Amino acid sequence: MTIQCPTPHHDDEVVLLGHGAGGRLTAELLDRLILPALDGGPGPMEDAALLPGYRELVISTDSFVVSPLFFPGGDIGSLAVHGTVNDLAMRGAWPLALSVSLIVEEGLPLAELRAVLSSLGKAAQDAGVPVVTGDTKVVGRGAADRLFINTTGIGQRHGSLHPSAALARPGDAVLLSGPVGLHGTTVLSTREGLGFEGDIASDTRPLHRLVGTLAPLGADVHVLRDPTRGGLAAALNEIARDSSVAVEIEESAVPVPGAVASACDLLGLDPLVVANEGCLVAFVSADAAEGALRAMRSVAEGAGAVRIGEVLPDGPAGRVTLRTLVGARRIVEMPLGEQLPRIC
Amino acid sequence: MTIQCPTPHHDDEVVLLGHGAGGRLTAELLDRLILPALDGGPGPMEDAALLPGYRELVISTDSFVVSPLFFPGGDIGSLAVHGTVNDLAMRGAWPLALSVSLIVEEGLPLAELRAVLSSLGKAAQDAGVPVVTGDTKVVGRGAADRLFINTTGIGQRHGSLHPSAALARPGDAVLLSGPVGLHGTTVLSTREGLGFEGDIASDTRPLHRLVGTLAPLGADVHVLRDPTRGGLAAALNEIARDSSVAVEIEESAVPVPGAVASACDLLGLDPLVVANEGCLVAFVSADAAEGALRAMRSVAEGAGAVRIGEVLPDGPAGRVTLRTLVGARRIVEMPLGEQLPRIC
Repeated sequence: MTIQCPTPHHDDEVVLLGHGAGGRLTAELLDRLILPALDGGPGPMEDAALLPGYRELVISTDSFVVSPLFFPGGDIGSLAVHGTVNDLAMRGAWPLALSVSLIVEEGLPLAELRAVLSSLGKAAQDAGVPVVTGDTKVVGRGAADRLFINTTGIGQRHGSLHPSAALARPGDAVLLSGPVGLHGTTVLSTREGLGFEGDIASDTRPLHRLVGTLAPLGADVHVLRDPTRGGLAAALNEIARDSSVAVEIEESAVPVPGAVASACDLLGLDPLVVANEGCLVAFVSADAAEGALRAMRSVAEGAGAVRIGEVLPDGPAGRVTLRTLVGARRIVEMPLGEQLPRIC
Repeated sequence: MTIQCPTPHHDDEVVLLGHGAGGRLTAELLDRLILPALDGGPGPMEDAALLPGYRELVISTDSFVVSPLFFPGGDIGSLAVHGTVNDLAMRGAWPLALSVSLIVEEGLPLAELRAVLSSLGKAAQDAGVPVVTGDTKVVGRGAADRLFINTTGIGQRHGSLHPSAALARPGDAVLLSGPVGLHGTTVLSTREGLGFEGDIASDTRPLHRLVGTLAPLGADVHVLRDPTRGGLAAALNEIARDSSVAVEIEESAVPVPGAVASACDLLGLDPLVVANEGCLVAFVSADAAEGALRAMRSVAEGAGAVRIGEVLPDGPAGRVTLRTLVGARRIVEMPLGEQLPRIC
């Protein structure tokens, strides 16, 4: 399917839900409308940007619109901390400070706002990052859905780590720190009352300490990426594109919890496109793979770390493939993007 | 009027529009719910916070929910740049980088999104600040009102300027860089179709260059504040509170454009509580006042700079008074906050 680009010939085009889902539609909106307007140059899209003049500092921003506000394993407050801390961590950075900006719908019970902010405060404290500034806007009933939170974070890079989505190399091992699909299926099941929410919980958690365990590996750590919107499929496709390499993973090696598999079966979803908020993908030199796995497994959030694949020595640039349980090979496409709105 | 604080005894309380209007309700929400949850310590509320470990860097965040998206003199895109650049400038900082995060309602015409982003990009270019990172979320129809934008900025302080809302001193001259009331009355008139919008335009513009003209005055510049939500009345009350001083201004000295006065008459608004987006209040040593006015008048955005009052030598801490045109004295209260929702 080809998405028409927004041009003066298509002025009747409107924003679609899929434009925000982290897949191909999001990428096209970015490439064809947002980046040109903001004079953004070409280059890999990273989770966090370097601050001009301060090469050791990175900045990342995220607005959280998850619905419902509370779900097993977390809520919009803890998610808003973890999401931004993790985007900083994926650039090899330790979080120094967070800003928090609220957009609140008139009529939201103060008790709910207090519960969200307490959770946010606790998550920030647990992650060791101070909330240094904020903003609160209130809009009338019906002008927002309860509560949206933006967090923006500043992080300081580990001296030895300079991961980038553009640095995957042929022969790299592809590592995954934990099971996939928990966050997206939990939120969806809670929102739609599907009944799986008793068996699963979001994996939302901070990953900067997990990244810290990889610091001793230095330049052998080529890419770090947390597979949030668009899931593992989107993350691997972005890396394959930005590094101009072919990536292959083994279906049997990707940990998918049973309840996630059941929920995905029911919903017709591929677990590879479901959002995660507490695991990361690392591309490391093949020689360093065992050491990286040992390091990751030394902390709780990396206890389930496994090797799931590799960068092919000479595959077509940008292609991601999956070796299935029966030994066949299928292409893992960049998700178009409409499957799971308001998951984060 | 006393506002009940949110406690377990008032769990039926909800967020009101006035909680976001920048007045007393906003301050109470901050003091009693938000800051305790985030473990915020006591101290003056500033427009931008210092970054831990980097005393020359400041960070500020703002979410923009203005309705309508386009108004005479600007739009949500330019406003989102100017608002954050100005919050950095009020801490004596030059903007280094901006993040931009969008929350878009499904169905927003791409042409409108493009127009807003082009304006945002142009405003950033004009201000000389790069947009280094961003985020886009899309929510379903009715879950947001068209478009909200968060910008977060990092700024580098002028070595000589360390203004703070807590540094006003008895005897200080109170300076105002330009006329008040234009932004709020323009947005309100456009939204409600009041008919003034042909005669007035928002004053939205960046103020960091204006602040730059004050850098040579160094420590004689005690306080800088842009009177946005809650207008001049809120800004002066915050400064009087945080510095524990009494402030008095002359009604005859405060420049109120004729069309603003007419609109405020019609609406029953006090021009002192109407939001501005292109002027600032400076508290400077009395000896430095003339030099500061000359410096401000050297750039277009400060051409109308005037002295509007002083910090009284021994007035009651926290009180702001106005000497009226007929020589009487009235208290300028902190606005409660409900007057002008969604003005920025």
